[in-house]
Amino acid sequence: MSVRTVGQKFVELCRAGKNFDVMRTMYAPNIVSVEGDGKETAGQGPVIKKSQDWVSDKEFNGETVAGPFFNGANPDQFAVYFTLDITPKATGKRTTLEEVGVYTVKGDLITREQFFHDGAH
Amino acid sequence: MSVRTVGQKFVELCRAGKNFDVMRTMYAPNIVSVEGDGKETAGQGPVIKKSQDWVSDKEFNGETVAGPFFNGANPDQFAVYFTLDITPKATGKRTTLEEVGVYTVKGDLITREQFFHDGAH
Repeated sequence: MSVRTVGQKFVELCRAGKNFDVMRTMYAPNIVSVEGDGKETAGQGPVIKKSQDWVSDKEFNGETVAGPFFNGANPDQFAVYFTLDITPKATGKRTTLEEVGVYTVKGDLITREQFFHDGAH
Repeated sequence: MSVRTVGQKFVELCRAGKNFDVMRTMYAPNIVSVEGDGKETAGQGPVIKKSQDWVSDKEFNGETVAGPFFNGANPDQFAVYFTLDITPKATGKRTTLEEVGVYTVKGDLITREQFFHDGAH
């Protein structure tokens, strides 16, 4: 598959709410996930667990996904803009988080994801 | 200024429609601009001219700017998500373009901008 095809499949699954299917089927075994604070998590299992932990204390009301977007100087990457509509269980206060994700693709699998956001997520 | 401050000033000026003020006051003399197709333009003057040429055959109806967003592993960068509401003069057909911009900052000035989008802009 081309990076374009991988990016389109990624966005399609996210829009269908299948974010964990993305992680299970499109993430490389050795994927590295870089959060906004720079913290890295390595390996498909630990990255999936990180997301499970993240959603465990929230109601997830929905998301929007813009993209995928491409740049010819970085032909192995695509970028996406997310809005995440969540309600932290601790506060019950609904809020929208925004982030840009930059994904690196090798051999049809995502080997790196890097999130840009503002403040704690 | 911190990269955060530079990014916030950038977004503030763009939201006020002052995109060319951004280029004149926040771009380094040796800035490199990388378009979605990978084509590079070097130098503040040529980059400003590229934008002037881009808008010359369009009505620019407005833009939205989300961000700035940051990642601790790339502390000299910020990312932005734009929607650009334009009407090409040739067709008169109003449309919205989307793109992610990744900006690199050195010494309070923007030294590199890289746009990710889908299809021709």
